[in-house]
Amino acid sequence: MDHPQTREALVFRVPMLHPGDTSGIEKLIATGTIDAEEIVAIFGKTEGNGCVNDFTRGYAVLAIETMLSDKRGCTREEISRNVAIVISGGTEGGLSPHFAVFAVRAAGEARPGPGLAVGVAFTRPFLPEEIGRTEQVDETSAAIMRAMAMAGIESSEDVHFVQMKCPLLTNIQVAEAAARGATTSTSDTYASMGLSRAASALGVAVALGEVSRSAITDAAIGHDLDLWSGRASASSGVELSRTEVIVLGNSARWAGNRTVHHAVMRDGIDLTAIQTVLEHAGFQPAGQLPTADAARIDAVLVKADPPRSGTIRGRRHVMWDDSDIHATRHARALVGGVVAAAIGRTDLFVSGGAEHQGPDGGGPIAIIVQHH
Amino acid sequence: MDHPQTREALVFRVPMLHPGDTSGIEKLIATGTIDAEEIVAIFGKTEGNGCVNDFTRGYAVLAIETMLSDKRGCTREEISRNVAIVISGGTEGGLSPHFAVFAVRAAGEARPGPGLAVGVAFTRPFLPEEIGRTEQVDETSAAIMRAMAMAGIESSEDVHFVQMKCPLLTNIQVAEAAARGATTSTSDTYASMGLSRAASALGVAVALGEVSRSAITDAAIGHDLDLWSGRASASSGVELSRTEVIVLGNSARWAGNRTVHHAVMRDGIDLTAIQTVLEHAGFQPAGQLPTADAARIDAVLVKADPPRSGTIRGRRHVMWDDSDIHATRHARALVGGVVAAAIGRTDLFVSGGAEHQGPDGGGPIAIIVQHH
Amino acid sequence: MDHPQTREALVFRVPMLHPGDTSGIEKLIATGTIDAEEIVAIFGKTEGNGCVNDFTRGYAVLAIETMLSDKRGCTREEISRNVAIVISGGTEGGLSPHFAVFAVRAAGEARPGPGLAVGVAFTRPFLPEEIGRTEQVDETSAAIMRAMAMAGIESSEDVHFVQMKCPLLTNIQVAEAAARGATTSTSDTYASMGLSRAASALGVAVALGEVSRSAITDAAIGHDLDLWSGRASASSGVELSRTEVIVLGNSARWAGNRTVHHAVMRDGIDLTAIQTVLEHAGFQPAGQLPTADAARIDAVLVKADPPRSGTIRGRRHVMWDDSDIHATRHARALVGGVVAAAIGRTDLFVSGGAEHQGPDGGGPIAIIVQHH
Amino acid sequence: MDHPQTREALVFRVPMLHPGDTSGIEKLIATGTIDAEEIVAIFGKTEGNGCVNDFTRGYAVLAIETMLSDKRGCTREEISRNVAIVISGGTEGGLSPHFAVFAVRAAGEARPGPGLAVGVAFTRPFLPEEIGRTEQVDETSAAIMRAMAMAGIESSEDVHFVQMKCPLLTNIQVAEAAARGATTSTSDTYASMGLSRAASALGVAVALGEVSRSAITDAAIGHDLDLWSGRASASSGVELSRTEVIVLGNSARWAGNRTVHHAVMRDGIDLTAIQTVLEHAGFQPAGQLPTADAARIDAVLVKADPPRSGTIRGRRHVMWDDSDIHATRHARALVGGVVAAAIGRTDLFVSGGAEHQGPDGGGPIAIIVQHH
Repeated sequence: MDHPQTREALVFRVPMLHPGDTSGIEKLIATGTIDAEEIVAIFGKTEGNGCVNDFTRGYAVLAIETMLSDKRGCTREEISRNVAIVISGGTEGGLSPHFAVFAVRAAGEARPGPGLAVGVAFTRPFLPEEIGRTEQVDETSAAIMRAMAMAGIESSEDVHFVQMKCPLLTNIQVAEAAARGATTSTSDTYASMGLSRAASALGVAVALGEVSRSAITDAAIGHDLDLWSGRASASSGVELSRTEVIVLGNSARWAGNRTVHHAVMRDGIDLTAIQTVLEHAGFQPAGQLPTADAARIDAVLVKADPPRSGTIRGRRHVMWDDSDIHATRHARALVGGVVAAAIGRTDLFVSGGAEHQGPDGGGPIAIIVQHH
Repeated sequence: MDHPQTREALVFRVPMLHPGDTSGIEKLIATGTIDAEEIVAIFGKTEGNGCVNDFTRGYAVLAIETMLSDKRGCTREEISRNVAIVISGGTEGGLSPHFAVFAVRAAGEARPGPGLAVGVAFTRPFLPEEIGRTEQVDETSAAIMRAMAMAGIESSEDVHFVQMKCPLLTNIQVAEAAARGATTSTSDTYASMGLSRAASALGVAVALGEVSRSAITDAAIGHDLDLWSGRASASSGVELSRTEVIVLGNSARWAGNRTVHHAVMRDGIDLTAIQTVLEHAGFQPAGQLPTADAARIDAVLVKADPPRSGTIRGRRHVMWDDSDIHATRHARALVGGVVAAAIGRTDLFVSGGAEHQGPDGGGPIAIIVQHH
Repeated sequence: MDHPQTREALVFRVPMLHPGDTSGIEKLIATGTIDAEEIVAIFGKTEGNGCVNDFTRGYAVLAIETMLSDKRGCTREEISRNVAIVISGGTEGGLSPHFAVFAVRAAGEARPGPGLAVGVAFTRPFLPEEIGRTEQVDETSAAIMRAMAMAGIESSEDVHFVQMKCPLLTNIQVAEAAARGATTSTSDTYASMGLSRAASALGVAVALGEVSRSAITDAAIGHDLDLWSGRASASSGVELSRTEVIVLGNSARWAGNRTVHHAVMRDGIDLTAIQTVLEHAGFQPAGQLPTADAARIDAVLVKADPPRSGTIRGRRHVMWDDSDIHATRHARALVGGVVAAAIGRTDLFVSGGAEHQGPDGGGPIAIIVQHH
Repeated sequence: MDHPQTREALVFRVPMLHPGDTSGIEKLIATGTIDAEEIVAIFGKTEGNGCVNDFTRGYAVLAIETMLSDKRGCTREEISRNVAIVISGGTEGGLSPHFAVFAVRAAGEARPGPGLAVGVAFTRPFLPEEIGRTEQVDETSAAIMRAMAMAGIESSEDVHFVQMKCPLLTNIQVAEAAARGATTSTSDTYASMGLSRAASALGVAVALGEVSRSAITDAAIGHDLDLWSGRASASSGVELSRTEVIVLGNSARWAGNRTVHHAVMRDGIDLTAIQTVLEHAGFQPAGQLPTADAARIDAVLVKADPPRSGTIRGRRHVMWDDSDIHATRHARALVGGVVAAAIGRTDLFVSGGAEHQGPDGGGPIAIIVQHH
């Protein structure tokens, strides 16, 4: 074999009873299923509103860091630096709150791959005036290349999902830049969340060859929705100034019985795309996946967004006009239902805010599957 | 032929721009597609919250009655007495606000049936102390038998959906009953909505032979969820004291190229049930219905409800614990997504409040389809 | 007396049970308190969310127009042209839904004034590219001058409240303007609501001499919050292309025992301003107004808005960051509580969206009082 | 002096930027204003919805316990046992999120009292079948007597506020009791929150002689709203099985320049009651308190609840019928506005769920004031 398979990536999905409930993760450790030191990333889907005042994200992060620092015997700061924690709020409709725990260990007796490969990397900290601009695109793109290299993924074809946590602009940062004579891409902090996600997604598109770098200008970021990545997923957070990148792919250098696959939903009700990704994973979907098949799926990662057009296949939706329920909440509920119809389970990581992450109103979908 | 096919039932689905927008219905009349006098029932799915303070229902009813009284040259009261108007609030997720207009005309040149049969009937007005009790069950059951007879449907097997609009208890009615020494099933007006729907649904179950009358006691109504109808759909409203019944079935006495079919969703993500009803209608569902097939579906009628268990297939849902978004809103969003996955369109009549209307967390689904 | 007092303006406040409930108004007519023909304006405070999908406004308008066209024996269109109907959604906190009915009749035996004077006028229809720009300011200003003249109010000092209903931009209008090569002030229809209210309010400020016309540029509209009127109140609606203006003042030409007074709340908790307007009306406020005094107040008209600063007197508020409850809903609840504290009643017309209507976070307050 | 004044109670109000932001408390410690060991209780008003899915409470508790365990060098469990942490969600309207930190230290050079006295006590753990019943009333009553004794408060007249954190029933507890043949007061876990608050409040009423013990039966708890305490404030939480009691009073045994006072709001707009408590505290309220006076108020503690009657002084409110905003959120917004009108500041601890805590629709109000 050309590449010795020295590593194995594992994914475990555990339920949570509330955003501060890490008992599912603790049980993985207590039962010896994984070692606390092996955890490289945790994704969480919490029952907040996924919008500005969603404090379930900060709560879950604090609970995880506190718990892991106890288990590893280190400070919370060290956990923060070494474990990529991405919490996405919003379990509308029938979605079920859960964590997906990513662990990496020496291959040992693991079944030979090609297997799931996980790469983690970070950009340098961004200046306020770089957020939402081509500088952020380029730095993100470079970080993805590093994460791929670290994971031993040689071809961009083998990358199936890139989860990112990127910074946003605060009022203080906007003012600090202005004091230096620099202008930020926006002075609206809420808008900066979308622009940062947008630049991150385009960074993936460039790194994976989905969009030509020459097509990307500052003006296009967040606006030209014809430019998109079919494998990017970004969320922005106030707690960091650099971007955290988790690349999920398949690689001949990794052992284990898990692989990852993806497709792109063209709109929020694109069942066909979901069936396509299931086919890529080796299933033969006709109706809903049988229970035994669904049990082999370790994670479903999807982006959802309200179509800007105001319609789905020509029929009016109410997402944008509803002042009681935020548009992104409607979108997650819808896509959660569509994916649950295909997969037959509701513990799905459906995340909102999909600028340049799939076409308008659609989004990438990836699944991690275990093979027997 | 034994039964001369003297009547044809037609169904037209039209979009609405807001709850008071009857322009879609007016256009049907203006273009001669239907005559205003032919309209026997209008179902509407409006973008309100579907809960207590959903005034989109009253708004739509007032707009329809005002418009139809102009077209027919009669009073609004006459429209109210002669046209069954059932408005259901809530287009969460991707659902699209629309009206379904039911018209009946002489068969004329219509393609020979058996075709869609529509029967309308009314109970006598209920006393407050009868609401949510066996008296309501029995009167509703009798009204359904009358509606079936009127529609010339001989076998309960041929009934596929029974839509009802039933009364609720107001504080004034509770007090009036108490003044007479009578006790109502509840003094909580919100709870009375559920009990009235529950008794109505059990009336269908008895009329169609789905549940034995002897199994139904006052105590079971609203509580024993093992008793249910697979074809009942009830909504309660403050504006009436009797129950309005619209029976949809197929009959050899009706002409026309439309038929109605049903199945029962076992839970909110039961794609298999939806594929079953599509098969009954003559489709061969594998993935999502092709656009040309979907275009032949005139109406999709579904009930949705949050499972009382707190879980969907063992995984926690948050519907009951969300104090920002009402549980029924989550349920409609979920089921809307699941049905849209199968059908490929979003103008679906998904209605909440499904006591005894399908099993806990599930509900009946019916489709009206046009055959070429 | 120089001016014969030929007219009397009356105001009646009646409760509503729901947005379509006009029974309170009908009772005024049935009891002979007012004649249907005397009604010149109706203000309504309905229990909708006051935001984009607040259909309680359209519902109330349809219900009023239908009822009044029956009473007056004319078409709904004639009512629409001749009666100014301003419905404001949102009764958060303890606010109580109600209508305020304005009627004008020959003075007859009415007690000599100076009394409450009511003037109604309309601008010409606006072109899309005029909305939110100085053209709208100037036309609105001119209409206010006409309404004052019609009401026989000679001095701008005698004007105490100007209620306006102004147009907004729809996507169709933006496109129509673009097709002609014209650019609208915004292409965001929601933003156009604020810009139209802003231009309307500045129109009042110019007409009443509160702001110099030369200070107003297109760029200042909606942005320079130091420019404001202490007597303007604007709401925008999709149903009209011109602006409707109702001027409330006191005039020696009007008979009757009612007068109107105003003050400006500097922020949402400015009790002192409320006490000032009560003093202007002849009360001697120390704590809450005694019940007998409160009973003499026929209408309380207030604007409320979340402070853009994010704080109230230096303390953080959460209005802008709450993705579950819209900021304007918080603001109405707050101001409703503050005004109810002073007046001792909750049927207050507290309206949101106060661009240039009072200082940032504050707003004008006017009361109409009956003297014995 | 009869009683040597050995202790001083201090209260510091600090803002929070989000529910996990303890920097205000840390600054009190870092600047030497208080010693971490002196903290006996922390009240927090967070920006959650104050309802079932309000995770800001758990988040704030975790953040405080983590921070204090670092500062004190002990485990989080020790903090939990020794510091009474009461977090109340909901800052609707203009309310400002904040913490109130209670510290007790040796009197030292403190100005002689009588001063603010703080007593903390706990009941024994409750059996599920005791919750919401007279057993809970009696145990709570006894705990309050112990807290008074600990604080050296001899007369119930000197108690001005009793804050309690009481348990609720979970599904597991209901089942455990049923397995033993015991029946709980309710099987509805949400209803158990209200019943537990109700029994706690009646425990205060008995301890302070406001209600005769003989008037309290299991049936009266939560239902007979004529029985109430003017000084009780209870909130229920899932995290404890016993009740935590914090008694605030004035005592000649305590030094310091702070005192506490109370009054009872008869309804949500009872400004007169607020002026009464300000008078008790030595102010002379006419309109809003001057800024210098407001600055001397260390804490404002109020209960708010929607009137069950559906009206405020005969005028309909919409709180109960609003399915978008929970009734308790409306009530807090309203009362927050009324109290802010009087006090001139918005960092008020307005808490919902006021069964037997003041009359229906009203509630106790207490202020802690510093004297120069």
